[in-house]
Parts: sequence; structure tokens; C-alpha cells
Amino acid sequence: MSDQFFSKLPSSRRGFLRRSAALAIALPTAAEVLSSCSEGKASKAPVRNDPSSHPTMAPASAPVLSARDKADAMDAMHEKGVKAFPAKTRGKGNVLMQPRVMGGVKVFDLTCSEVDWEVEAGRSVKAWAYNGQVPGPQIRVREGDRVRVNLKNELPQSTVIHFHGLELPNNLDGVPFITQPPIKPGETFTYEFVVPNPGSHMYHSHHNAAYQVGMGLLGAFIVEPKDARNEPKADVDYVMILNDTMHGYTLNGKSFPATEPVVAKLGQTVRIRFMNEGMMIHPMHLHGMHMTVIAKDGWDQPAPWKCDTLNIAPGERWDVLVKATNPGTWAFHCHILPHAESEHGMLGMVTALIVQPAGV
Amino acid sequence: MSDQFFSKLPSSRRGFLRRSAALAIALPTAAEVLSSCSEGKASKAPVRNDPSSHPTMAPASAPVLSARDKADAMDAMHEKGVKAFPAKTRGKGNVLMQPRVMGGVKVFDLTCSEVDWEVEAGRSVKAWAYNGQVPGPQIRVREGDRVRVNLKNELPQSTVIHFHGLELPNNLDGVPFITQPPIKPGETFTYEFVVPNPGSHMYHSHHNAAYQVGMGLLGAFIVEPKDARNEPKADVDYVMILNDTMHGYTLNGKSFPATEPVVAKLGQTVRIRFMNEGMMIHPMHLHGMHMTVIAKDGWDQPAPWKCDTLNIAPGERWDVLVKATNPGTWAFHCHILPHAESEHGMLGMVTALIVQPAGV
Amino acid sequence: MSDQFFSKLPSSRRGFLRRSAALAIALPTAAEVLSSCSEGKASKAPVRNDPSSHPTMAPASAPVLSARDKADAMDAMHEKGVKAFPAKTRGKGNVLMQPRVMGGVKVFDLTCSEVDWEVEAGRSVKAWAYNGQVPGPQIRVREGDRVRVNLKNELPQSTVIHFHGLELPNNLDGVPFITQPPIKPGETFTYEFVVPNPGSHMYHSHHNAAYQVGMGLLGAFIVEPKDARNEPKADVDYVMILNDTMHGYTLNGKSFPATEPVVAKLGQTVRIRFMNEGMMIHPMHLHGMHMTVIAKDGWDQPAPWKCDTLNIAPGERWDVLVKATNPGTWAFHCHILPHAESEHGMLGMVTALIVQPAGV
Repeated sequence: MSDQFFSKLPSSRRGFLRRSAALAIALPTAAEVLSSCSEGKASKAPVRNDPSSHPTMAPASAPVLSARDKADAMDAMHEKGVKAFPAKTRGKGNVLMQPRVMGGVKVFDLTCSEVDWEVEAGRSVKAWAYNGQVPGPQIRVREGDRVRVNLKNELPQSTVIHFHGLELPNNLDGVPFITQPPIKPGETFTYEFVVPNPGSHMYHSHHNAAYQVGMGLLGAFIVEPKDARNEPKADVDYVMILNDTMHGYTLNGKSFPATEPVVAKLGQTVRIRFMNEGMMIHPMHLHGMHMTVIAKDGWDQPAPWKCDTLNIAPGERWDVLVKATNPGTWAFHCHILPHAESEHGMLGMVTALIVQPAGV
Repeated sequence: MSDQFFSKLPSSRRGFLRRSAALAIALPTAAEVLSSCSEGKASKAPVRNDPSSHPTMAPASAPVLSARDKADAMDAMHEKGVKAFPAKTRGKGNVLMQPRVMGGVKVFDLTCSEVDWEVEAGRSVKAWAYNGQVPGPQIRVREGDRVRVNLKNELPQSTVIHFHGLELPNNLDGVPFITQPPIKPGETFTYEFVVPNPGSHMYHSHHNAAYQVGMGLLGAFIVEPKDARNEPKADVDYVMILNDTMHGYTLNGKSFPATEPVVAKLGQTVRIRFMNEGMMIHPMHLHGMHMTVIAKDGWDQPAPWKCDTLNIAPGERWDVLVKATNPGTWAFHCHILPHAESEHGMLGMVTALIVQPAGV
Repeated sequence: MSDQFFSKLPSSRRGFLRRSAALAIALPTAAEVLSSCSEGKASKAPVRNDPSSHPTMAPASAPVLSARDKADAMDAMHEKGVKAFPAKTRGKGNVLMQPRVMGGVKVFDLTCSEVDWEVEAGRSVKAWAYNGQVPGPQIRVREGDRVRVNLKNELPQSTVIHFHGLELPNNLDGVPFITQPPIKPGETFTYEFVVPNPGSHMYHSHHNAAYQVGMGLLGAFIVEPKDARNEPKADVDYVMILNDTMHGYTLNGKSFPATEPVVAKLGQTVRIRFMNEGMMIHPMHLHGMHMTVIAKDGWDQPAPWKCDTLNIAPGERWDVLVKATNPGTWAFHCHILPHAESEHGMLGMVTALIVQPAGV
């Protein structure tokens, strides 16, 4: 993708990147440079009350940065992040899970355990994960299916699963001491039910949940309707899980530039199922095209409505359609700007919708 | 309710509760145990750089906790909270107020003063209250009624009442120095008006309001429509006031497990009038059944729409209907998880919708 | 306006203002007085562990404040703020910009630079501004117009413009390293396009945006529809840009009491275009009348709906109509109360809708 993005950049910028890398050796830290950038003054890296720090007296070992040099240094960091997108990392979450089918029952075997999770290249965190994924494996079934979820708990804490949005019988609702005892470390528990209501739902821990969900015990539970005649036609069906807890600002468990782009061909229809598993709202803004909102928490809206910025609160799911009418690579990000950018470049809850030529 | 919740729990857990209570004597604090739980390691309570702290060398007075023991200790705290629900506390807010009727006028006498308010069992706070209640007494009148509200100010600050949502004549809008002088300590002020527009409204202080409303000067003001033919039929009509300010995370002035359950019989329709008097959004999530949203700020939505998680912002009121189709006790809570749970158990903005058998 | 507001205030209050000003000399600070007010106790200004501080022993130089005196002192501060509204400040943002027309192209020349911006009387901040305004000049064009925006960058950082909400060709989307190189300090860049979709949109920096937008690089970009037959008739069309970043809580770049009232005559229809360029939600509450919501992000809602408190998230735009049926001066503010009031009086995101008699 770097070629696709940057083929038109002047070679002088690429040259600058090398030059600024060399400069960096002489500079205390990028943060200090940026700090002085923000002051909007042309000065060398901060040295307090030191007469020798005057630009005209700077020794050769402390290069003088012009305003332009400092802008270039900042831009180089921003460019580096964009060029790295989509950056490779170990581990992928939200991967569609194939059930075992036993006697007509779709069986999903989940194990929760502690893992190392690479949120962005070089930044790994402790995570509590279903089957080693953050978010957990994506479960997709059909309304009326008989489903069995076996949860093996390899964590040091008890846990449970709440199927958020599914209207299950009470004893399968997954709330410790209200509907079931907690599943102790080392134990396995089985949830089995006929899938009641269609839509974009979730599964997650409901025990010590501020901690356990924050650590990664969450996933998408998508239910296709039995009667699909009223379903909108979509060429791409994408689940985007928003998070902002122990692992930072993430989309499907990764932070920009390690986030995954949504890809469509010109003229296609993309269905995006937003789900917020964090603690904050995230108004997701799509560039270049609008979104048509069709469902909330798995229930059809009475009439579709359009927007380019959709505010998604914790626990909510919103389904939207995007008609990929505008070719190119389009920024797609949370519009709480500190969730998406800093002086060091774009970060966190940023991805792209890539609309490719129809013929590709 | 503890029987209803826990009759199926194995007696070994009840035994554990007693055992863990005994253990607690030897343990520094529950928080320290939990802290070590979170590290996911089996070790005794933290003692730094002390060779005798090695598990195999632990003296009898410092019992070694296995991962299971620690999970059990945490679970016991969670169980204790749920078992206590609904916990008894002194004082109840949002109690329906019967007006005096004088010459066809419904007269509501309110006195605001400082009181001690028990938010949950054993935790009392200073509150500023109307008639000693947090939220203040629930006022219910009918569109077109003539209403008189006498406010006696026994607080050390001036105050006023703003009838949030009512389209009153300007001089009754309750904004100091814009529509009226503040009501000084010791003074009484009378608001009298014909009730203009129906719906779920509020009354609260509008003077030094970040402080005064935060301290408790707020209540529900419900206006039944004159023509009730288009009103949805509801068997239960419940006002739920959300708050997050000086008294912590509360529903109708109480924190879990001292919150009040919403109770309905199977097949009944429950109308819930959400009102947010805090400073943060609260996406309220109902388990087991969905909500049908019918009104915003007292105005009918153009078409009802469904959800299971409804984001309620400060100052907003949302009316929803819940058809009680799913028997059992259902968690009902803010989905910003730290508003609802910690390692010590559920807390704050948690209650339950209890759907009882139709015959009870 | 002070006359309009305060003509009915007793002269004793005006006298008190003078008296309290005199008292202030002897008092440590107003904040300390307020602090003791909040404790709800009648005592003189705080002096710790000093026997002479007992009220009955207070020397003449340390006047004893009664509860009433303290309430009066607080009220005087609140009154002072309201009386000052709308306070004059240097600089006005969001001023409608007249383009140069060249060969049928509407040309908008923007220069971004650092300026001093008076947010409220006596409080100036460093701002990064388009043409010296915060928000930048209001751009209003018509769907199908050919528009050219020349941006001259006089800032020490690179920048770009993203036209938030406009469905432009990819190379004009204004995202550095994805759709264009950043515009370096001293450089000028030209965006030229046929205006695609109507509605209430925005323009702002998309480079180092958490900082640059926070510092003021933002403005309204309003597109009138080519076919205006379905447009609602509005006598007043008002753009209100909400912000909460480096400059504090502001409406159109100013904090109360320096905010600008919205003014209409009785019976007129006011269209308000809310835009949030901050990092937080702001539920805007109008007193005395309701708002009818007609559009989101420039797209018509499927059916208008009514409210008095509208939650506006970062990046969102909401268009509402207000029928000015209720004469008077009406508070109009964010209902996150600390964004609107403190013990020192109303502040930040507060303005008023003034409904004047029809004949004026």
C-alpha cells in the first residue's frame, strides 16, 4: 500500500526521512523537538538558561532546526505512520469461527486464557482472550439454530459469558449469582440454546466485567435472520469493534497503523456493524461517502437515515450501509481527535475504507 | 430475594463464605488479595523482599491462597453484593407526592434543606434535598392543571427551581437574574402556572447548579396528556433518574445493591421514563428483553424504535416500553462498566427488571 | 440588556454589590468565601486553629459574614456575569465570508496563523486561526457551485484542510500522506471543486488535528441545496459551533458572558445548525421552547422529531428549527452543568435565545 499512497510524493521527502533519522541522533528526543515545535518558535532543542544555546552560537554538534526543519520532522513521523498502514502484527482477532456440527447443533468451543497481544507493531500487552484472539472469534449463526458454547476457563479468576442482545432464557443470561454460579478457574461451562432474535450482538464476560472485558473477553455474535428477504444486499459485511480500555484505543483489537482497512470495489455495498465494548463514546467519521443507518442493537430502524459521523456508546451496536461510490483510500476514524491523532501522527481508532476500481 | 436467587447454589459455597471470613482475619485487606488475584499468580498476600514469604515457607499464620481460593474470595464479594439486593437503606427518593388541592389548584409544598442521605447501606453523604428526598418527590399532574409550587429555602445558599422541559411563561423559568431574583436563604417563592405541555420532565435548581443539582436538588415532573387516547397502555410506569455526581453512581438516589428493582408480571407492559441529572452519558442496557423507544424529552418519536442499550445524555429524558415476555430476574445497568462493577462486585448504576409469573 | 434583565431587582441588591465590593478588600479571596459557603456554615473567612477567629471575637478588621451575606456575595458574582452578557470582546469568529468571484468560481482566500484570541473579556489565549477568526470565516455556497479555497500557511507547522462532510474527489480530501502532502509553513495550497452535497458541513485541519483543531483551525461550510423547494422556511439561520479544547468551553469561540445571543421576533422560525468541533459530547438544552430536529450531518432525517435537549457528539452536525412562540430571554446551554456554571456564576457554553415582541 505504501506505493499506492506515496508514489506521488516528491523524492525529496523520502530523502528528508533519511536526513531526519540522522539528525535524530543529535537530538534529545522527538518529543522535545515537538514540544519546541508547539511553541511555534525557531530554536534548537531546549537547553535552559544556556548562553551557548543561542542559534547563532550553536556548535556543530547541536544542529539548528529551522521552523521548516521542525515541521518536516513532525511530518516525517506522521508519514511514517501512514506508510506503515496496515502494519503487520502477530495475532488477529474477530476471525470468523467455524463451529463443529454435532447432531444438528453448532458447537463453539471457547477457551479463555491470558495471552500476549500485539496491539501495534512492537507494543504487546497482557490480554485475556477467547481462543487467543482479541476480540474473540466472530460467531455467526442463523435465527433458530441450535447453538452450544462450551467455555473452558483457564484464567485465574472465575468468569461467565453474557450474550449481549440475545433474548435467552434467564438461566443462560450469564450474570453470576443472578442467573448462574461463576465458572471457576479450571472449570468448563456449557451454554446451549435456540438462537432467538437476529441482529448484530456481542458476547462478553459479565463477571468482574470492568476488568475482564477491558482485558479482552469480548466478541461479536452475529445472527442472520431466518427470513432474509428483507435483509439489505451487501457485498462486504464487516464487523468493527471499538475499544478504549486497558489496551488503548483500538478497532478490532489493534491500534493504527496496525488496524485493518475495509476494502470494497467501486459500486459495491458495504455493511458495517459497529460495536462498542469500551467505556467511552466514539463518533465514527467516514470520509468521502455517507453511511445509511439501518439497525440499532440488531433491530431495524423504522426508516433508514444518513450521516457521516455516527456516535456509538458503550454496549451499543449500529448497522450501517455504505455505497462505495467514491474511489480512493478514505480515512475512517473516531472524531474525538485524541483517539485518532497526536503530534507523533495518527494513532488508535483510525482505519481506512479503500474503494478500489470495479475492474480490479 | 436471596432465596429466589441462590436456592440452587451448592452449600459448599455458603461454607466457603464462612471460611473466607475466617481467612480474612489473617489477610491484610481484601483489596490486597484482589490485587494479587489480578496478577494471576498464586502467592500469599504481598510481602515485599521477605524470604519467609515464599509459599512453601509460609508460617501457619499466613495462609497460602491458591488461585482457586483467590477466585473464591473475589466471587464471595460479588455474591455478597447480589445477595444483599435490594438492600435496605434509610430514606427513599422519587416518592409520588400528593398535592393539596386549594380552589382547583394543585399545591406542592417543597422545602429544600441539607440532609444526610444513605446512598447504600452504611454510606451516608451530605445531600441537598427537596422534602428530604433524593431525588425530590415525584410530581405528577395533568396537562392544563393549575399548579402551585411553594419553595421554602432552608439552605445556606440562594436557589431557584427550573422546570426543565415545561414551556412556561418566561418569568417562571427559574433562571436567576434572567427570569427572577434568586430565592435567598430563609425565603419562600411561589411558582404558579397552567401546565403547558405533556411528557416526562424534571425540576431542579438552576442556581449554582453544577453544585446544587449535584448535591441532590432535582426531581421528576411528569405531565399526563389531557387527551390520553394516544397514550400507550402500561401496567407499570416507572421513573428512573440517573446520576453520577457528588453521591456517586446512582439510580433514583441509591447505589447497587440499594437500588430498587422494577417489577412486572409476565405479559405486562412496563413504561420506563429515563432521566439523566448527572454530568455523563449513561447507556442503559436491559438484559433478556428489548426496549421500544416512544418519546424523547416528552415528545413522541415519529415512529417507535427498538434497542437494548439506550444512551441517555445529561438533561435528556427518554420514554420506553418493555413488554415483560421473559420470566426471571434480569440485570439492568449502565454499560459503562466502571459505573456498574469493580473487582469487589456490582455497584452503582445496577438494578434488575424482575418478571414474575403471571399468576403471582 | 442589563436594564431589560434587572429593572425589577430591588435597589438593596445593587447596594449590596457596593457593600460586598468593600468587604472583598478584607477577605482573602472570593474563592475562599465560596469554599466556606459550600460548607453550609456561618463563619468568617477561613483561619485555621486561630482562637481569635471565633465569630464573637472577630476584630473589626475581619468582618463576620452571615449565611445571608455569603449567599449575597455568591449571588452578586452570578448577577455580575449575567449583567455582563453579551460582553464585548475583541474579535468575532464565524463571520460570513464574501468570496471573490473569478470566471464563475467563488474564491475563498484563507490564511492560517497564530493570533491572540479574546475568549471572554480579559482572557486572551494563543489561537491558530483562519483569517484571524475562531471559528474561521463562515463559508456559504450552493450545491453545484465551483469553489476555490486558497490556503496560505503562516503557521510554524504544516497543515491541510479537510472539508468534513463534503463528498469530494479523493485528492481533495485533505488527509496528509493519504490524499495529499502536508502544506508546509510558508506554502499555499489550492483546493478547487464543484460543491457536491448540500447541508451543514465543516472545514478544519486534518494534520496534527488534535492540536491544530483544538487551537482553532475550524469553521462552518454551509451548502445550500440547488433545489431549495424542500428547504424549511427560516427567518433566522444560525450556526453554533461547540468547542471544549485549548480555549475552554466555547460557543463560536467565546465563553459566557461573551457569547452571542440568538435573536428572533415572536412568531419567527429559527434554524440552528449545531456543530461540535470539541472532544466531548454537549447536550444543548433550550429553555421555554422545543427544537424540531430536521437534519443530521447535512442529511434530512426521515421524519422531523422534537426535543429540548440535543446531544451533539464530536464531528456531528444537527440542524433544528425553533418556532419562536414564547417571548422573553431564554437560557440556552450545555446541560453538562460544569460546562455551564460554577460557584462563581454561569460560564462557558451558555447563551440565550431572545424572543422579541413581533412589532420591534
